[in-house]
Amino acid sequence: MKWSQTHIYTLKEAPADAEIPSHKLMVRAGFIKKLAPGLYTYGNLALRAIRKFENIIREELAKDGCVEILMPMVHPKELWMETNRWNEMGAGLLKFKNRNDHEFCLGATHEEAIVDYVRHDVKSYRDFPRNIYQIQTKYRDEIRPRFGLMRGREFSMKDAYSFDADQAGALKAYDAMYKAYQRIFDRLNLQYRIVQADAGNIGGSQTHEFQLLADAGEDALLVSDKTQFAANIEVCPAIDSVPYKSPHTSELATEKFATPGAKTIADLEKLTSVPTHELVKTIYYSANEGNDSKDKSLKAFAVLLRGSDEVNPIKVKNFLKMANEPRMLTDDEVREVTGASPGSCGPVGLKIPIYADNGVENLKNYIVGANEDGFHLKNVNHGRDYQVKFVDLRMAREGDKCPESDGRLKSYRGIEVGHVFYLGQKYAQKMNGVFLDKNGKSQFYEMGCYGIGVTRTVQACIEQSHDQDGIIWPKAIAPYHVHICHLDPKDEAATSYVDSITKELEAKGIEVLIDDRDERPGFKFKDADLLGFPVRIVVGKKGFEADQIEVVQRKGKEVFKLAKNQVIQKVFELLS
Amino acid sequence: MKWSQTHIYTLKEAPADAEIPSHKLMVRAGFIKKLAPGLYTYGNLALRAIRKFENIIREELAKDGCVEILMPMVHPKELWMETNRWNEMGAGLLKFKNRNDHEFCLGATHEEAIVDYVRHDVKSYRDFPRNIYQIQTKYRDEIRPRFGLMRGREFSMKDAYSFDADQAGALKAYDAMYKAYQRIFDRLNLQYRIVQADAGNIGGSQTHEFQLLADAGEDALLVSDKTQFAANIEVCPAIDSVPYKSPHTSELATEKFATPGAKTIADLEKLTSVPTHELVKTIYYSANEGNDSKDKSLKAFAVLLRGSDEVNPIKVKNFLKMANEPRMLTDDEVREVTGASPGSCGPVGLKIPIYADNGVENLKNYIVGANEDGFHLKNVNHGRDYQVKFVDLRMAREGDKCPESDGRLKSYRGIEVGHVFYLGQKYAQKMNGVFLDKNGKSQFYEMGCYGIGVTRTVQACIEQSHDQDGIIWPKAIAPYHVHICHLDPKDEAATSYVDSITKELEAKGIEVLIDDRDERPGFKFKDADLLGFPVRIVVGKKGFEADQIEVVQRKGKEVFKLAKNQVIQKVFELLS
Repeated sequence: MKWSQTHIYTLKEAPADAEIPSHKLMVRAGFIKKLAPGLYTYGNLALRAIRKFENIIREELAKDGCVEILMPMVHPKELWMETNRWNEMGAGLLKFKNRNDHEFCLGATHEEAIVDYVRHDVKSYRDFPRNIYQIQTKYRDEIRPRFGLMRGREFSMKDAYSFDADQAGALKAYDAMYKAYQRIFDRLNLQYRIVQADAGNIGGSQTHEFQLLADAGEDALLVSDKTQFAANIEVCPAIDSVPYKSPHTSELATEKFATPGAKTIADLEKLTSVPTHELVKTIYYSANEGNDSKDKSLKAFAVLLRGSDEVNPIKVKNFLKMANEPRMLTDDEVREVTGASPGSCGPVGLKIPIYADNGVENLKNYIVGANEDGFHLKNVNHGRDYQVKFVDLRMAREGDKCPESDGRLKSYRGIEVGHVFYLGQKYAQKMNGVFLDKNGKSQFYEMGCYGIGVTRTVQACIEQSHDQDGIIWPKAIAPYHVHICHLDPKDEAATSYVDSITKELEAKGIEVLIDDRDERPGFKFKDADLLGFPVRIVVGKKGFEADQIEVVQRKGKEVFKLAKNQVIQKVFELLS
Repeated sequence: MKWSQTHIYTLKEAPADAEIPSHKLMVRAGFIKKLAPGLYTYGNLALRAIRKFENIIREELAKDGCVEILMPMVHPKELWMETNRWNEMGAGLLKFKNRNDHEFCLGATHEEAIVDYVRHDVKSYRDFPRNIYQIQTKYRDEIRPRFGLMRGREFSMKDAYSFDADQAGALKAYDAMYKAYQRIFDRLNLQYRIVQADAGNIGGSQTHEFQLLADAGEDALLVSDKTQFAANIEVCPAIDSVPYKSPHTSELATEKFATPGAKTIADLEKLTSVPTHELVKTIYYSANEGNDSKDKSLKAFAVLLRGSDEVNPIKVKNFLKMANEPRMLTDDEVREVTGASPGSCGPVGLKIPIYADNGVENLKNYIVGANEDGFHLKNVNHGRDYQVKFVDLRMAREGDKCPESDGRLKSYRGIEVGHVFYLGQKYAQKMNGVFLDKNGKSQFYEMGCYGIGVTRTVQACIEQSHDQDGIIWPKAIAPYHVHICHLDPKDEAATSYVDSITKELEAKGIEVLIDDRDERPGFKFKDADLLGFPVRIVVGKKGFEADQIEVVQRKGKEVFKLAKNQVIQKVFELLS
């Protein structure tokens, strides 16, 4: 393909709203263009990369007998009411009325649609196993879309759904998808980790995320330095690598003392000289939010943890079996519950449920708020001064103990590109997904669901694989494999050479873009670096006549100066 | 592919809402399944046909240097306000507010989006010509979706947009697309006609529709029996093949006469014994509707035509340069304008503009309503009794004269599967689509737009190509080429033969579906007919042992009984 015959426009400057390298590079290279926040047109080069990734997915899923279909983007309300997710999904589910005043939403995920698709047909144990997928545009009404295709409103996703007669079958399907995802992401030849994760409002009891590693990733991951253990920080167990031992052997008498102006743990540390990891802080939450309770009175609870730790709201949600993360109380609500402002509150005398992170368990004679403005208590001890249940509620962090070994956890940032869920019978039960088993008995089927963010993965590849000059495409999804900088498109001999090597390469399935524009060499080289195809060939009149052609590998920019008849061989080598 | 390993469920009965054969067959064959009115899931087999048709389109457009991109489905209101089509498009454009209260619509067409895509980049005459397309899901909020994929709400479309520096370039692009569309539809090997058409609210002065012929088609077409002339009835010039000659030579005196109870032309014919083609009827319309006038007072006008003719509202719209078809007056409005009920109205004495169809011009001494309930006038003559402008305003019909020759028009029904529009500068002017010409002067560019209904075409193929037993797929988009009815899947020898011919066929690019279900032969044959792949091979234990294999061509159902080693050759033959 000649540059002059396609539609590529590069930019020198990234737009102001692009915060991370991959977003900047995608826009500068003309791969994407914003129509509105979170809504992008994919240029021809981006589309080539996207299609290649889609085909990688198709090829690997076909090996496991997955069947491709295509479900609508627009769903009727009635469907989502069957699972109550019409109400549970929150504002990210875009809802609208059509001209006949019927309510619809834009599909953000397709569990309801797929169950409706199969439930009229799949009726016997002989119909299993089945795994059906689609590659479809999804819409999530992100309140603040950002990072280009990484957190857009409209995006492309591959979503697969497995159906099995029993749990053993469903877990086998889960395992097969897990392995298929490994094959898919292995083909990108990039660094990724498979981590334990939270199921969110998809539901399900077993779930793994596939995370492409990148500094700008939105997810924090913790990975063992000794075993295969890896988890999203959202669900990573938090275990001190060196268990705390209190210097105190006996419980001292509680004392109230004045702490004027001490509103934060840092203030308290300054005032008392007790280090933050020996102080205890109390956080107040509402248990009403996010579940279906009709009782709207304030159901407060408190979470205690060391001053040096942070609450993990997803652990709190899962521990209390809430539908969504708990909401922190407002200052007024805290005063209503404790009688004091947040900076002076503590567990002693509270009439609400109290849960403490495990890290508090070994503390003795510690300081907490006195539930009286400007005062704290010292020498407080659980069991004696208040009752509490100990649970793992804090955020894990780098250096914590590996839950499976004596190793330590190392921290990474990741971009979630894939997610596998074992769903059990959740959707089948709510939507009457039944079949007759071998004994003629009606049973609910077992499901799994499996997503890959197609457009997000393409951008994530760039986020992991670029340098200061531009993109470095993995060969498997590079829009073109070879970029020929044709420096003298008006020179007949050079042009005929360019045409002949292009023909030879294309005959072997290697895709070539020829920059035949009337521009200076430096300008063309900059664009070649920016677009980032794996191999660049530089052909000019001078080099052609001297029988010296430059072949450059994009990654690492190694330059090979070769005779004309050595070029093809070198390109094969570099692409193999 | 084995039936047992994919997901195909056929139905004996078509659903009650399926009115036309292709809709019934698509549902019965499991190609589509309704999620809600106008919203269908495409099963794997339908998707295979759709993808094949998409690739035919891609291959043919690539020959003309068209560049594929992908634009968002969701568009911001601001964009559509630039052309005012936010207001002009009517209720078919689905609008909604997102969580931040911003207004959006679901793209029903992408002229605005494509101009926004190119206007920041295309700046010089050197950037032309350019032709950019996408294959994207579209949404039109049909008030009454029907006919399956033929008039659905969500559907897939290929839309291309050409950009040129001047009109000559734009018309060249139009011509190239016209020819590309011929190549595309030729590959389906079906009957179609290219007809002159109306541009609707896309705009543009030159436009052709590609119509697949089918009895259930929603469009009426008129085609010359002598020349290449063909037009959608919406725009077809109406010319009497035998010009009317009045028996009268002089104008007689007008007379009012009582016509009690005569409300229709049929009543009047009965009462007066004058044939309908010599009577004149008057229809009243409002000129206010559908244009942007702030003046909301009633702007009535009248259209006269022979009692045997029908008004063509699109001709009226185009003649009066209205944005939409005119609205007929209510009975009350007619009385306000004429003083009489609709059955007794006529042109004499009216204070509103009057237009008459050409068919009225040669009438003399004719009858019209007297604008007094229960009375008509006889011996009325235009020129003398009232003033009128003659225009072609009637519906053309079979038997009318070909506008290009002395031939006659023949009538067909068609399904509009493609549409090409020359747009001129309409969008460029409204959206500031400018470039610098050779002289450094800023100019608006010229555009064309070109659509193919992808999912509609796939169904239209079935509408044209089926029999009482099922679908007869054109080879180019058949989901599979060969359907093997494997009658004894438990027989090892037969199975090994099935596997070996499948392997041999697949190696040559022929796609094979093996019905390996545990079902009776008749059941399998019925499904094979229903699914409609071009060639069926029947392999059973008995035939295998007798060395007699049945090969059946779906179209015409010719049966060939062949030795095992002749089967492959026959399949090649039938598919060539």
